[in-house]
Amino acid sequence: MNISEYILTHIDPTFKESELPFNTQMRYVKKGEVICDYHQIEGNIYFLQSGIAQANIENSKQDTRIVDFFFEESFFCSYSSLLTKSPSDVQIVSTTDCKLEAVCAEELNRAYEHSIIANKLVRIETQSLYRKKVRREKEFLTKSAEERYLDLIKNNPFIIERLNIDSIAKYLGIHPESLSRIRRNTTSQVRAKLT
Amino acid sequence: MNISEYILTHIDPTFKESELPFNTQMRYVKKGEVICDYHQIEGNIYFLQSGIAQANIENSKQDTRIVDFFFEESFFCSYSSLLTKSPSDVQIVSTTDCKLEAVCAEELNRAYEHSIIANKLVRIETQSLYRKKVRREKEFLTKSAEERYLDLIKNNPFIIERLNIDSIAKYLGIHPESLSRIRRNTTSQVRAKLT
Repeated sequence: MNISEYILTHIDPTFKESELPFNTQMRYVKKGEVICDYHQIEGNIYFLQSGIAQANIENSKQDTRIVDFFFEESFFCSYSSLLTKSPSDVQIVSTTDCKLEAVCAEELNRAYEHSIIANKLVRIETQSLYRKKVRREKEFLTKSAEERYLDLIKNNPFIIERLNIDSIAKYLGIHPESLSRIRRNTTSQVRAKLT
Repeated sequence: MNISEYILTHIDPTFKESELPFNTQMRYVKKGEVICDYHQIEGNIYFLQSGIAQANIENSKQDTRIVDFFFEESFFCSYSSLLTKSPSDVQIVSTTDCKLEAVCAEELNRAYEHSIIANKLVRIETQSLYRKKVRREKEFLTKSAEERYLDLIKNNPFIIERLNIDSIAKYLGIHPESLSRIRRNTTSQVRAKLT
């Protein structure tokens, strides 16, 4: 699915491809490539046609944590950097080979001036990113690592097959050994969540 | 400042009050009033003309945590509930007496269909809410309670005078006694942050 098809399906059922208010460019990246590095200023928004990407962050002890995974048919970039035009404090990396459609930020900013579709698309996508962040914040404030693991599996049932245990542990903010223990303890609950 | 003035100042310098694409209603609430309760479905977005409001959440042990403070000249509501039309899992309460301008969600949804300003306003406000959430998530993943306290003071220097220590502790996710200790240890650093 490309951006035009995504808009037609999720944003406006009357949308025509010829009305797309910005140009897009295809990019193919291999697994493990850096799409936006630490301290770089993000200049694009990407639509993930296929593959998985992730946002890494380093804490004061230089440990890497994963703040986000991005899946097919969703938008991503170092969004705070893009919005504030400041150096990125996350690193965006392709978790698998990815097929991306890139939209240049400057072009998008120009589109906001005259296009309802550009404003509507980014409003709705940001609302959905916001909901994801709120969910994650509440999880940190109110849930144990075990509960957060069970929620992750429930919301993304395919995550176990597509990501390694080390990545999932970094996303949950725990040690891989703790995650292995949690997984042993929760096998039956995972089955219940998935059915 | 009212919503029209806010749009003129922050969203579109050519905006005229007569172009406001939705009606607004004034509401005056006393300190401690519940604006949107747990399990209620949020039906409004509020613009805070004056005062402070907060979003509470309960963890599995029935302890209250504060997930957000809202200050003058900003928008707030139980936003996830509004977006998903599902029962609110936060409680929105006035921290002080508040003067609010309310916009009905249904009216806003209709405005999105034809108005660039409605889409642009909510896009920009949601982008700003998103940045706030990202900052907070990174703080939980990478910073100690002491570092988070110093950041809070830096970003909201007036918070010490306007909120009690119990509320600040609930926002940082720590015990009031721990916060008192942190405050004793960081007096000189707070002074440095504020100058």
